Amino acid sequence: MSKRVAVIAAGQSKFGTLGKSMKELFIDALKDCELNTKELLTKTEEVYIGNLGVGGSQLGNPAALLIEHGLRTGISAQRVENACASSGFAFRDAYRAIRSGAKVSIAGGVEVMNDLSPLHQKYWLGVSGDTEWERLAGATFAGIYALMAKRHMYEYGTTKEMLASIAVKNHRNAINNPKAQFHKEISLEMALNSPLVADPLGLFDCCPTSDGASVVFLASEEVARKYTDEPIWVTGSGAATDFLALHDRPLISEIKATQLAMKQAINQAEIKHSEIDFAEVHDCFTIAELLAMEDLGFYDKGEAGDAILRNDTGIDGTLPINVSGGLKAKGHPLGATGTGQIVEIFNQLTENAGKRQLKNVQTGLAHNVGGSGATCTVHILRRE
Amino acid sequence: MSKRVAVIAAGQSKFGTLGKSMKELFIDALKDCELNTKELLTKTEEVYIGNLGVGGSQLGNPAALLIEHGLRTGISAQRVENACASSGFAFRDAYRAIRSGAKVSIAGGVEVMNDLSPLHQKYWLGVSGDTEWERLAGATFAGIYALMAKRHMYEYGTTKEMLASIAVKNHRNAINNPKAQFHKEISLEMALNSPLVADPLGLFDCCPTSDGASVVFLASEEVARKYTDEPIWVTGSGAATDFLALHDRPLISEIKATQLAMKQAINQAEIKHSEIDFAEVHDCFTIAELLAMEDLGFYDKGEAGDAILRNDTGIDGTLPINVSGGLKAKGHPLGATGTGQIVEIFNQLTENAGKRQLKNVQTGLAHNVGGSGATCTVHILRRE
Repeated sequence: MSKRVAVIAAGQSKFGTLGKSMKELFIDALKDCELNTKELLTKTEEVYIGNLGVGGSQLGNPAALLIEHGLRTGISAQRVENACASSGFAFRDAYRAIRSGAKVSIAGGVEVMNDLSPLHQKYWLGVSGDTEWERLAGATFAGIYALMAKRHMYEYGTTKEMLASIAVKNHRNAINNPKAQFHKEISLEMALNSPLVADPLGLFDCCPTSDGASVVFLASEEVARKYTDEPIWVTGSGAATDFLALHDRPLISEIKATQLAMKQAINQAEIKHSEIDFAEVHDCFTIAELLAMEDLGFYDKGEAGDAILRNDTGIDGTLPINVSGGLKAKGHPLGATGTGQIVEIFNQLTENAGKRQLKNVQTGLAHNVGGSGATCTVHILRRE
Repeated sequence: MSKRVAVIAAGQSKFGTLGKSMKELFIDALKDCELNTKELLTKTEEVYIGNLGVGGSQLGNPAALLIEHGLRTGISAQRVENACASSGFAFRDAYRAIRSGAKVSIAGGVEVMNDLSPLHQKYWLGVSGDTEWERLAGATFAGIYALMAKRHMYEYGTTKEMLASIAVKNHRNAINNPKAQFHKEISLEMALNSPLVADPLGLFDCCPTSDGASVVFLASEEVARKYTDEPIWVTGSGAATDFLALHDRPLISEIKATQLAMKQAINQAEIKHSEIDFAEVHDCFTIAELLAMEDLGFYDKGEAGDAILRNDTGIDGTLPINVSGGLKAKGHPLGATGTGQIVEIFNQLTENAGKRQLKNVQTGLAHNVGGSGATCTVHILRRE
């Protein structure tokens, strides 16, 4: 029996401030899949749902509820929670499920964040950092990433302009993504002069608060061939952890978990970095995209900033990053983000990405980070 | 390559009101393993931690923190949450991980509940039921199981004495379990006359509020043979969901998810019910143990009550159930319960169960329920 794992369908709700329940959002994501998911649901054996449980909807046991509203009971379904990497890990689980013998599995994610007041959102976001040493000591999440940015600036001469340029690019990309939260171009000047959130990060260095859901169907090669002529293969899966609290890490100008997860994924895929055509990376803050460019090994440490200024990672650059708009402008509904990235890779590789379609792409990478880097997944997908 | 999956080490902290953090409890569970887990941790590829996040410790991203305190970073670790079945599903994931090619994986669970006031505990427990139709409408968790008990009494003539007899048995069993929360025998009269919590369930029909952790190491056959002469094989794994809210289910005198999960597990194990020597079942309330006896197929519907009065399920009965004391008397630290049941099966099958050791047992079953039956896992373990 083939050990290959395919993604055969993928969809997502719009991301944004939507006023919908998690159940409605999950149905929206199912309906967005090109394939008839009703039949696929009858063949599904395992379901993994990423959800941080920020909003006041179903705090415990949500996976059964969601799949019930997808009109299916009686199968294995579970919630996976690793902060903002929840559905990156859900995708890894669904991948492992097929490798272990299941014929069809589902990875998805959902988050409702905008039913909370901004104050409560701030409290909830902090739960992804270390409670004892960070959250209860007053560190906000932006504050934690600001420390990493400051250190990167100190070590490598990284500038606020480099960071702001990431925001400008991702906002520009999102204009061509109908599912994105923002459809508004911003100028470098606007980004540089936005209100300071946590020095050196301004408002436009930070991703928004988003509602949304995403869902991906995975299948064995045998099943995939029946449903589609263009299965997208998962050729590499990597996952790693690191110390939860920033102060425990030897270096804070890098995310070690990204480096380790990438090593696993690229070794398994048996490819070189140069064979990866585009990437969706975890840009919860602009500094996070810059760190990802380096820690994924596309650039040496300290060299990503210049690459950004050269527009290497623009839609017509040598390595387009976050063509979807990224977390920054597509939106970041925590639990839905990881599989949301897979949706973009799938759409690009199946040439269903509309106005933002990249030309001649064969291999894409998704990079999903939990907290400030305590957890991370990297997945490599490839079309034949 | 063999597809067999073995449990090679298992341990748990004491369950009870302990005043320890989740990190301390997790270390306690690791230390309780007979094998040297330090070396095993270096070989571990995947970690799955069941945790409902009741207490105020690490609400998001806890898996990385726990495994870091187990002195290991850089591997894949994630939190699994399916209410009280969280670590039953974590165990299923760890099993699937080995089946998909990992050499060593960990399933565990942890919960700190007693750092909350009784009022807040009540709020939190409700999150496992349906938020929209049950929790926010005022239904307590005991109230939901009380409805199931009432219906079972109406349909089958089940009596309060039958339910109370389960509590008496499980308290008696726990006396011989040093890790159990309670070491106090109760009489049938005490159980029957205990204060009413939700008619017909009295105080002794309800499990306690517990802190605790448990951990299980799984391995491929090749690795297992290196570490132990007595690997315990996982021969069947079943998991299913049902409607979350009670009112959506056609019948509330049964738990359909248990029936479906059992069907999968026993078919995979290729055995008959009569070959199962003992079971740890999910007795969050006494009625839940009675339902499990029937829904697992050991007794026809309506016949478990008489079996209890006959002491069929006592430690010297035909099918000992909850020799550990069960959730009722061993304790129920939500996320730790599922793998806690596996710890008991492992100890019995490796003849390390001390004063409660069963004689000549070869096959044991673990049954873990999330919420009022929205999620369920069944695992069958066997020694050679």
